[in-house]
Amino acid sequence: MDLLVVGSVALDSVKTPFGEKERILGGSAMHFSVSASLFTPVRLVGVVGKDFPEEHLEFLRGRRIDLEGLEVADGETFRWVGEYTQNLNEAITLETHLNVFADFQPKLPERYRSSEFVFLANIDPELQLDVLQQVEKPRYVACDTMNFWIEGKPEALWKTLEHVDTLVINDGEARLLAGEENLVKAARSILGQGPKSLIVKRGEYGALLFDKEGEFWAPALPLDDLSDPTGAGDSFAGGFMGYLASRGEVNHANFRRAVIYGSTMASFNVQAFSLDRLRTLTPKEIEDRARRFKALSDFDLPPRGS
Amino acid sequence: MDLLVVGSVALDSVKTPFGEKERILGGSAMHFSVSASLFTPVRLVGVVGKDFPEEHLEFLRGRRIDLEGLEVADGETFRWVGEYTQNLNEAITLETHLNVFADFQPKLPERYRSSEFVFLANIDPELQLDVLQQVEKPRYVACDTMNFWIEGKPEALWKTLEHVDTLVINDGEARLLAGEENLVKAARSILGQGPKSLIVKRGEYGALLFDKEGEFWAPALPLDDLSDPTGAGDSFAGGFMGYLASRGEVNHANFRRAVIYGSTMASFNVQAFSLDRLRTLTPKEIEDRARRFKALSDFDLPPRGS
Repeated sequence: MDLLVVGSVALDSVKTPFGEKERILGGSAMHFSVSASLFTPVRLVGVVGKDFPEEHLEFLRGRRIDLEGLEVADGETFRWVGEYTQNLNEAITLETHLNVFADFQPKLPERYRSSEFVFLANIDPELQLDVLQQVEKPRYVACDTMNFWIEGKPEALWKTLEHVDTLVINDGEARLLAGEENLVKAARSILGQGPKSLIVKRGEYGALLFDKEGEFWAPALPLDDLSDPTGAGDSFAGGFMGYLASRGEVNHANFRRAVIYGSTMASFNVQAFSLDRLRTLTPKEIEDRARRFKALSDFDLPPRGS
Repeated sequence: MDLLVVGSVALDSVKTPFGEKERILGGSAMHFSVSASLFTPVRLVGVVGKDFPEEHLEFLRGRRIDLEGLEVADGETFRWVGEYTQNLNEAITLETHLNVFADFQPKLPERYRSSEFVFLANIDPELQLDVLQQVEKPRYVACDTMNFWIEGKPEALWKTLEHVDTLVINDGEARLLAGEENLVKAARSILGQGPKSLIVKRGEYGALLFDKEGEFWAPALPLDDLSDPTGAGDSFAGGFMGYLASRGEVNHANFRRAVIYGSTMASFNVQAFSLDRLRTLTPKEIEDRARRFKALSDFDLPPRGS
């Protein structure tokens, strides 16, 4: 199935306890696309500046990523400068330069309008809704957001969420959006106001799926070779949506599997800077690692009364 | 199998965002004993003062808890006064009055010396070793500790750990003990220096088991009715050891199940102040909830190449 994503494409400068890199490929739509393209073809909607290095375009052309929707605008590419201390769950933003992203008005190429699976990465909720309205008949829509929009444009965000099947956010965002400290209550409140399901990303603590059929807890893989958590959430969403779109069938069992493939992709994402680990990743490596999640969390219980 | 525990018995005063209680039954050995007694008979070693309310003794006598090793000393019972803010993972200690616990010299009743399963709750590591040496032929020993001993008596602690099968601590303690920020590396380092297995408790994020057969991640149950996390770790240990002792057989599959029963007991523990939820708990409720952990974390993957 065709999977469309709209979001940011960025050049990041990132410092972590494990190293430092300048002007590396980043942005929500970028991590998402590369991750999802390992499962299914992706249609990218985004904008870069004239300074966007040709080598990155070259790399993307070698993937199953349709670039017709990637606008090259006059000006510089979106830049993010950030840092992580020992707490890798929290990025410290040092600089944000929106550049060409500031005036981004996503316009879908005609071919994209038939897309059935849509991921609205973390951008202005008004733009998210605008993109969604350009899709003829979206079958399954997932969406990310962040504190900045939850606090700054709550009405536009809730309006977008009316059209969203699955909201994919982190635990702090879920609490803020619901105005509720308890995560279970927060999830219930959010599910009562629009989205049919909610995925709460918790970094090194895994991810929680809430839908009307119950709750699913996916672990995160305990790793000893972390490099850079930037984009892990978008790689998660890419694996999640990529798997669902590749299957075509949206049901609870596939949701659980999709969360595992999302977690699998996030675990690869954090093992190198940018999306570098994803560049060389093979389907076999993905399958092997998904099975490590099974080995990590599997158990059986004795029969009752034994 | 006979399960022996040594640790603190306390009267706690606790404040959480959900209420406040004075002089309630607490202490590591108390939460452990009541939790474990739902699986197997327990032999308690500890000390209380003359002020220890008769109603608590009455309650304990109604359980499968042997009180011959519970000394009643001149003076007052160990008192802890603590508070939790919204972050229920971290207790703020306001007051500690060791009272009779300060001069506690555990002496095992003759009958206790044949115990095969031993849990050394969080007390001075010298006392832990002293108790262990009074047990004739311990078959399986688990142990808890805390930052205070890791920083204050590291040599004594490591000496105790040489005789321990499973160390059960939280993630901050594991990092401190190993002097290593990465949890996987910390676990590897600890397992290289004594204990054969390590359980890392992570509060609302579940628990991780590390042993030579690999890693197991147990979820925590997402709850909407938390009351008081005090003693959750000891209730976990009680369910874990209680299950193992009830089975008699220590192997990796039983370890995984035991971690689930431990998590099950911790989830009940936090739903009321003190160990009040455990007072009315039935075997059926325990089994039902253990199965909720299965439903929460279960998934299957498509066959390779499908």
